[in-house]
Amino acid sequence: MERKQGEQSIQFDQAPFIVSHASVVGKKEGEGPLGNAFDLVNPDDLFGKSTWEEAESAMQKEACLLALQKGKTEPEEVRFLFGGDLLRQGIATSMGVEPFRIPLFGLYGACSTSGEALALGAMTVAGGYADYTLAVTSSHFGSAEKEFRFPLGYANQRPLSAQWTVTGSGAFLLGRGGSSEGGSGIESVLESGKEKSHVRIRGVTIGKIVDYGLKDSQNMGACMAPAAADTIHRALTDFQMTPDSFDKIITGDLGYIGSEILLDILEKNEIVLQKKHLDCGKLIFDQETQDTHAGGSGCGCAATTLSAYILPRLWKGEWKRVLFVPTGALMSTVSFNEGKSVPGIAHAILLEHC
Amino acid sequence: MERKQGEQSIQFDQAPFIVSHASVVGKKEGEGPLGNAFDLVNPDDLFGKSTWEEAESAMQKEACLLALQKGKTEPEEVRFLFGGDLLRQGIATSMGVEPFRIPLFGLYGACSTSGEALALGAMTVAGGYADYTLAVTSSHFGSAEKEFRFPLGYANQRPLSAQWTVTGSGAFLLGRGGSSEGGSGIESVLESGKEKSHVRIRGVTIGKIVDYGLKDSQNMGACMAPAAADTIHRALTDFQMTPDSFDKIITGDLGYIGSEILLDILEKNEIVLQKKHLDCGKLIFDQETQDTHAGGSGCGCAATTLSAYILPRLWKGEWKRVLFVPTGALMSTVSFNEGKSVPGIAHAILLEHC
Repeated sequence: MERKQGEQSIQFDQAPFIVSHASVVGKKEGEGPLGNAFDLVNPDDLFGKSTWEEAESAMQKEACLLALQKGKTEPEEVRFLFGGDLLRQGIATSMGVEPFRIPLFGLYGACSTSGEALALGAMTVAGGYADYTLAVTSSHFGSAEKEFRFPLGYANQRPLSAQWTVTGSGAFLLGRGGSSEGGSGIESVLESGKEKSHVRIRGVTIGKIVDYGLKDSQNMGACMAPAAADTIHRALTDFQMTPDSFDKIITGDLGYIGSEILLDILEKNEIVLQKKHLDCGKLIFDQETQDTHAGGSGCGCAATTLSAYILPRLWKGEWKRVLFVPTGALMSTVSFNEGKSVPGIAHAILLEHC
Repeated sequence: MERKQGEQSIQFDQAPFIVSHASVVGKKEGEGPLGNAFDLVNPDDLFGKSTWEEAESAMQKEACLLALQKGKTEPEEVRFLFGGDLLRQGIATSMGVEPFRIPLFGLYGACSTSGEALALGAMTVAGGYADYTLAVTSSHFGSAEKEFRFPLGYANQRPLSAQWTVTGSGAFLLGRGGSSEGGSGIESVLESGKEKSHVRIRGVTIGKIVDYGLKDSQNMGACMAPAAADTIHRALTDFQMTPDSFDKIITGDLGYIGSEILLDILEKNEIVLQKKHLDCGKLIFDQETQDTHAGGSGCGCAATTLSAYILPRLWKGEWKRVLFVPTGALMSTVSFNEGKSVPGIAHAILLEHC
């Protein structure tokens, strides 16, 4: 028995708005091609704290605060928060969002978590359960190296297939939309003087775990590419669209190696993505000058690039429709050391200018 | 600005059914007071695998399989799976549920994850996004000791306030209900000869992080009790009910110490729970004979007790209404070693016989 068309995707009748959003990054990201587009660049990668974990928590808190301020919304107006990170037991989120006192759903989907948070946040708003939800994810180069590889002081060498974990956090305030049947649907958003949003989440495609049996944790792009291909294929089928239906199809953090594999796999399925494809892991760092090898990665990579680069173009109408596909490598140091493979997962978020 | 009444809770008009459920446990749990009630007791705590992590994954897979079989439902009919565990990066879930090829939302809420999974699974069904969702969580004594304390071979001593992580997994198949306005609402469930369910999820209360500043990771009951008190207080307020509205109010894994603290905190808020309160961590082991100190704990504790002990009583109508409150301690070995406190979180699931 096969999964029926549409079974992995949801198309919202009452498509939620992205009311506001914010990005917070570290020094290296601030020096990259998107440097000027981030809301906050902190030259101190410790963000004034004493550990990488606290620094990452501080980024999540700051990103949420900025998104709330930009959306002129108080934490008390946000009914649920969906958040996650890469650290064991999601401690960056637990420590970062506690001060807001917002009912919390903790998530884990590796670097695909921003997609998971946006999907659940949108489903919750569109389902009528909340006027506002907040989706936040983060990663930090220091905490991620310590968690998955070696403490920075060890100064280990990185293979060229390795990606550079982005120090950054992106937060997205989602709000209730109106009818898709011609109505502008901005009534509720415009209440109490809030600015009208120009981006909606029209639908979501939830990914399955895809495991090609790869075991190289230093080549995560290759591990995640099959999952991205599966989810993109599925989204196009479910939404009855082609690559030409989109201005861009943007994966989370496949980087240079994973992106090539993605295009190859899709081409074998007669989907030609070349002209439409971008990858946040390729956008966020300059490969020539920043020594980041195969590109950026991490829960913060797709989230900050979405906020700083993708959403402004959708907001202005420069792009009308984008498929945003954060990608995750499902591994831990334990599973890796026990010789297990690194399966991938990817979720797709269908974003539209309005 | 304070959170308004009802803002943490959702009451479903179309309350989803618990179509079927299953519990899988290890040897020690099988020797406990609920031993005969579990669906599967495996005398081999490695479940035929070579690592604790693989064993835990095998339990999740087995629990899902059993729940699907009992519900006469194929994996392809399940639109989304909500799952989590206690291990870093949720590897027990990632490795365990992969074979089902069900679109996955990975969750982390420490031992409260079964509540988080049931809440999101129910919201997804009641919101019309799915006919069936699957909620699964697990924990394993061997993998948890290794993750949070010491490998078993080290044979460390445990203080009397420590709890014993349950080796077990519980899976719950949720299905679409009908109208709450007098209708039986069983039409969709009865399709294709499936058995009528007699338990519905009438509502959920999503918890906030509650941090009393406790730092003793070997006394998690005390860390979680304030969160449980907060969520129970909130659920009673939001649903406009009193302890007398329930046959039982059952916390996840506060154990002996945490349960006392819970009752004390609630009594100070003029909520007297004594006659109504049970705790899965106290139910699952025999304190006299099983040397489990302050009781059971873990993502599998509340889940297996719900499946083996609570749901059968609701199904038969022996109990009409239960508030099920899984409790979680939000910590990692990193946060603990860095001297951070152990905040708690708890979610409430309002279960009714029908």
